[in-house]
Amino acid sequence: MKLNCDLGESYGSWTMGMDSSVMPYIDMANIACGFHAGDADVMQRTLALAKHYRVEVGAHPSYPDRQGFGRRSMNCSAEELVNLLHYQIAALDGMAQVHGLELSYVKPHGALYNDMMRHPAILQTVFTAIQSYHKPLALMLLATAEQAKHQADAKAQGISLLFEAFADRRYTDDGLLMPRSKPGAVLDKTEVMAQVLLLVNEGVVITESGKRLALQADTLCVHGDNEAAIAEVQHIRQLLQG
Amino acid sequence: MKLNCDLGESYGSWTMGMDSSVMPYIDMANIACGFHAGDADVMQRTLALAKHYRVEVGAHPSYPDRQGFGRRSMNCSAEELVNLLHYQIAALDGMAQVHGLELSYVKPHGALYNDMMRHPAILQTVFTAIQSYHKPLALMLLATAEQAKHQADAKAQGISLLFEAFADRRYTDDGLLMPRSKPGAVLDKTEVMAQVLLLVNEGVVITESGKRLALQADTLCVHGDNEAAIAEVQHIRQLLQG
Amino acid sequence: MKLNCDLGESYGSWTMGMDSSVMPYIDMANIACGFHAGDADVMQRTLALAKHYRVEVGAHPSYPDRQGFGRRSMNCSAEELVNLLHYQIAALDGMAQVHGLELSYVKPHGALYNDMMRHPAILQTVFTAIQSYHKPLALMLLATAEQAKHQADAKAQGISLLFEAFADRRYTDDGLLMPRSKPGAVLDKTEVMAQVLLLVNEGVVITESGKRLALQADTLCVHGDNEAAIAEVQHIRQLLQG
Amino acid sequence: MKLNCDLGESYGSWTMGMDSSVMPYIDMANIACGFHAGDADVMQRTLALAKHYRVEVGAHPSYPDRQGFGRRSMNCSAEELVNLLHYQIAALDGMAQVHGLELSYVKPHGALYNDMMRHPAILQTVFTAIQSYHKPLALMLLATAEQAKHQADAKAQGISLLFEAFADRRYTDDGLLMPRSKPGAVLDKTEVMAQVLLLVNEGVVITESGKRLALQADTLCVHGDNEAAIAEVQHIRQLLQG
Repeated sequence: MKLNCDLGESYGSWTMGMDSSVMPYIDMANIACGFHAGDADVMQRTLALAKHYRVEVGAHPSYPDRQGFGRRSMNCSAEELVNLLHYQIAALDGMAQVHGLELSYVKPHGALYNDMMRHPAILQTVFTAIQSYHKPLALMLLATAEQAKHQADAKAQGISLLFEAFADRRYTDDGLLMPRSKPGAVLDKTEVMAQVLLLVNEGVVITESGKRLALQADTLCVHGDNEAAIAEVQHIRQLLQG
Repeated sequence: MKLNCDLGESYGSWTMGMDSSVMPYIDMANIACGFHAGDADVMQRTLALAKHYRVEVGAHPSYPDRQGFGRRSMNCSAEELVNLLHYQIAALDGMAQVHGLELSYVKPHGALYNDMMRHPAILQTVFTAIQSYHKPLALMLLATAEQAKHQADAKAQGISLLFEAFADRRYTDDGLLMPRSKPGAVLDKTEVMAQVLLLVNEGVVITESGKRLALQADTLCVHGDNEAAIAEVQHIRQLLQG
Repeated sequence: MKLNCDLGESYGSWTMGMDSSVMPYIDMANIACGFHAGDADVMQRTLALAKHYRVEVGAHPSYPDRQGFGRRSMNCSAEELVNLLHYQIAALDGMAQVHGLELSYVKPHGALYNDMMRHPAILQTVFTAIQSYHKPLALMLLATAEQAKHQADAKAQGISLLFEAFADRRYTDDGLLMPRSKPGAVLDKTEVMAQVLLLVNEGVVITESGKRLALQADTLCVHGDNEAAIAEVQHIRQLLQG
Repeated sequence: MKLNCDLGESYGSWTMGMDSSVMPYIDMANIACGFHAGDADVMQRTLALAKHYRVEVGAHPSYPDRQGFGRRSMNCSAEELVNLLHYQIAALDGMAQVHGLELSYVKPHGALYNDMMRHPAILQTVFTAIQSYHKPLALMLLATAEQAKHQADAKAQGISLLFEAFADRRYTDDGLLMPRSKPGAVLDKTEVMAQVLLLVNEGVVITESGKRLALQADTLCVHGDNEAAIAEVQHIRQLLQG
């Protein structure tokens, strides 16, 4: 079970996240590409850091909305979406190669990630962008109750999927994440560890109603926002190695 | 003698240049990468057009200044400049490969081009960016009285140069372009054709003071801004084939 | 019946619209504020032009999406929307006063205009922005079958409305504009003149199904995009004066 | 002696500065206007905070360079500079009035501030922008050995100046700030207090070579970046009240 984390989300003079503290503990770095966060300087530094810790790198593209941090849905056409995904992926891809790194996957960010999980047409557009890129890249998406269908659709188009689960978020009975706005949506430290163990050992999560839901996750999404988050990642890492 | 032209300089809903009219007559398309002009959609369309007419493609990167169209010098550090060049080149590089095209050169735009020709430290930073990119790309720059020195410096760093001359601009005795603000800076139609013939046949231009200046040009820069410019390109093309 | 037109939609080196050709024929200039189009230079020039022709000026604010020209809906919170409206209105307001002009109204642009007409919550947020601005500004919106309700709601909040009708667009039976994508959505020259006369003389439009729909319009929206549009504005102007 | 501080320099999801911690101790808030930092939401919150603590508000406009935080000189024309100053000042001016606040001064930011102090033509352009704005605003600039000349030039154009001194920076013999890159450029805590007392009581600073240089300062620039800076502001405030 690999750990993935959104990184490179500083911008210009503004710092976000403790990238150098979390990088040693993760396996996959989802690197912002300049549309919601990151810029050429931040990307360069984040790639250097990933290289140093031998972390796999993926593109973390977004709707073009820096002020909104890519968290506001935008009504882009399919063609626009394919192009803006290609642009962002390509920018990171080339900069990664400057460091001798190879991009291996794409994880859409924020509102685009949510829209992709909710709207089959948008997921299909993301598939199209991945499939038409000039090198094979896996797509990272949420492991939900629909993961078998997603897997079949992707396979038919020659796309590899990486399913991620969240260590620190409570699941609905549909296998979606409870919105952060709801009480209990974010797990406490003990619950996080229990959820990780269940996912790793039995491939299930306990949903909000107490049901066991089977979820096959390739990777766990962790966070590097602050000291507490770093400590949590370290604990998860120990648990996985234990 | 190849013809190169700056293209893909539309942005969003704003159109600039008659790209589809000029593309059939040129050999090399210098494509804007989204920092002074162009965006993911414009880049995609421009690459498709270049592919259709089998035109060689190069990156046309700029300072990050869309409102100023990359025409205002910005005091970037060397590190910032390398990163923003890599970002722009990489974005176009990957999108070109989506079309089965390979980027072969870089021609900086506007103020960055001028700064590079005037300030050896900035030219060196551009060299560094080209040299550290993960695939070999030539650098297109102005053929001036200093071209032998530029050639030697580039060769020492393993960089190929492409020297361009301007068909429609009058040269100073230093082999630089007369500023557009000066009377006589832009040649009339007859002068353009004379300058092209001299460049092609004898490798010289007649400077503002009437001197013959030797300039070895690999390519001529032409324009596709309007109907008159397109007609001029057609004439130059005929002249070169004649 | 006043004529209003969207203006100041150039950006940096990109020109859009024939502002100086249409300005002499209109009464109200809806000036872009830099979020979908326009910039400080374009705004300054557009205000100078409006002053010269003694045209009333209004703010034409948008979602923050220059590449999409404000035509893509963005899921902004009410608070964000109020703030971005205040910012844009204020920027134009102060620049207008530099020219001795006073802003008198606001007409939202593109997707924001459409969203406001479709979603009562967004219309209410626009009301809130107008009502909380520090000086009275009218809100220009579409005259529809719901205009009495809009009028009552606005009056209750102390807001003046300006209803606009479109000279060149066919109306649905609900009093909305037929989407441009549908055949017949844009009227031909003869139909435009007939629609203008009906609106002015009888306060009605003939809808797509041939019904007479009562619409009280304070102003007609005209366009200055190209020569044909300018000619149409001149005809409408003659008709109104005849 | 008033205390002024640069504020409102967060952007979107990125936080910079401890605005709510420093606001209680200052007299004048220099608020970013969206070009190097700040956005409509940040401006709204900063204005609300200034109102709460009855702090005077001024515009802190910049070159248009968010990624570079306005710290890179840009070669703007005088006309561009006037327009972009008007746009930024106007945006903040109108938003301030929404809160019942009146903008009273302008302090240019970063590279624009430095360029204005170094290049008389740029200072004159800033004067022109201030003088042509539709309401009287003072200009805050650095108290230097040239302050009498600056005062005379401004007076001739009907502009009020506010001279600021720096509590925590060492001065050169020319009355300029030692560049931060030089050792000793930033004073230690004891030196800060000594410099404040000298400025307030005797109107002088001790320069790097140990000379006494007369500087008449209307205001001291303080910082709210972190806990240490907040503590320093508190000390300076106590000193001034003592």
